[in-house]
Amino acid sequence: MDDDTATEILEATYQALCQHGYADLTLEDIATEADRSKASIHYYYDSKENLFIEFLDFLYERYTAQLPSVDGGAPREQLFTLLETVLIDEEAAPGQEFRTALLEVTAQAPYNDAIQTRLANFDSVLFERVRDIIVVGVEIGEFNATVEPAVAAESLVTIITGAHTRRVAVDRSSEHLYKTIIRYAESQLLVDELSETTH
Amino acid sequence: MDDDTATEILEATYQALCQHGYADLTLEDIATEADRSKASIHYYYDSKENLFIEFLDFLYERYTAQLPSVDGGAPREQLFTLLETVLIDEEAAPGQEFRTALLEVTAQAPYNDAIQTRLANFDSVLFERVRDIIVVGVEIGEFNATVEPAVAAESLVTIITGAHTRRVAVDRSSEHLYKTIIRYAESQLLVDELSETTH
Repeated sequence: MDDDTATEILEATYQALCQHGYADLTLEDIATEADRSKASIHYYYDSKENLFIEFLDFLYERYTAQLPSVDGGAPREQLFTLLETVLIDEEAAPGQEFRTALLEVTAQAPYNDAIQTRLANFDSVLFERVRDIIVVGVEIGEFNATVEPAVAAESLVTIITGAHTRRVAVDRSSEHLYKTIIRYAESQLLVDELSETTH
Repeated sequence: MDDDTATEILEATYQALCQHGYADLTLEDIATEADRSKASIHYYYDSKENLFIEFLDFLYERYTAQLPSVDGGAPREQLFTLLETVLIDEEAAPGQEFRTALLEVTAQAPYNDAIQTRLANFDSVLFERVRDIIVVGVEIGEFNATVEPAVAAESLVTIITGAHTRRVAVDRSSEHLYKTIIRYAESQLLVDELSETTH
């Protein structure tokens, strides 16, 4: 299969997933969305599960490309840009329907190793980016010297995951959750100017 | 229906849910688990959805009873007991299977108002308990005076929700997540002794 066909089918999977959710998703829905025959999808993928694993790999590539990488910028700005990307940027942080479908997929993880491995990859890449930003922030003194990067990154990944779940569960707005997390990051990481002068 | 019968059916729903997940759950599964005929379950509940809403109300009653309430104890201890209850206490914080089924149910919330209302109740009661503990902690000076109880409680509820999701998604252990959140709460709330002496 050429790359264009693959991308077309995977984009159609995204649309079909938003519309039908994961449990109800069929290869036929994806074919309809791609404007192809069901047979042509079957020609490339023998099951919904196999197509879906490839779809998760495709999302992962896109996700890692969208996550701001650690560059020479100020760590505080970098961290806030990253939080914006995963929480409120409509390009990168997908809408409510997709987020809901992803929760459904998450509920499959304990029963499906291939899915769990993919979700663990999303989790790890986010953790590593956050940790690397914090490492630099502590080194250059923009973040508090007492911050342990791995511990702070673990908290941040957990609170980001919680924001995604609460957005679906209780319809809390992304903006509101984003502000909560920014305030958390500020109080947790940034050098407190008052105490800095006294230490 | 007498209370014993109701409790028996709702307990059977819990077991059947852990075993089958939400999407695949049928009234028949619940009947089997309760050692009753499907007709007798149908006599009380006309659909899986109705039974399930009553089940969520039943869980909510149990959840609010298990959550430690705000008493005269030290706020720090109370908060840690509460975190233990919702994160690692095997009695109150249900196992992996149930947590997984709850994520499946969460993915229904945007399409089902009755479910979303129930999930919002779980979220609110946790938020209120956490906030009330923090209010007292700030008042008596055990927590930092700069802590805003509602903001800190919102962060904590979000990170707790994230811990529940990550436990399912990436199989992170409850113990590990509990420790992360305890460290988070300590750094976020507790009066830093060093800065206290200098302020």
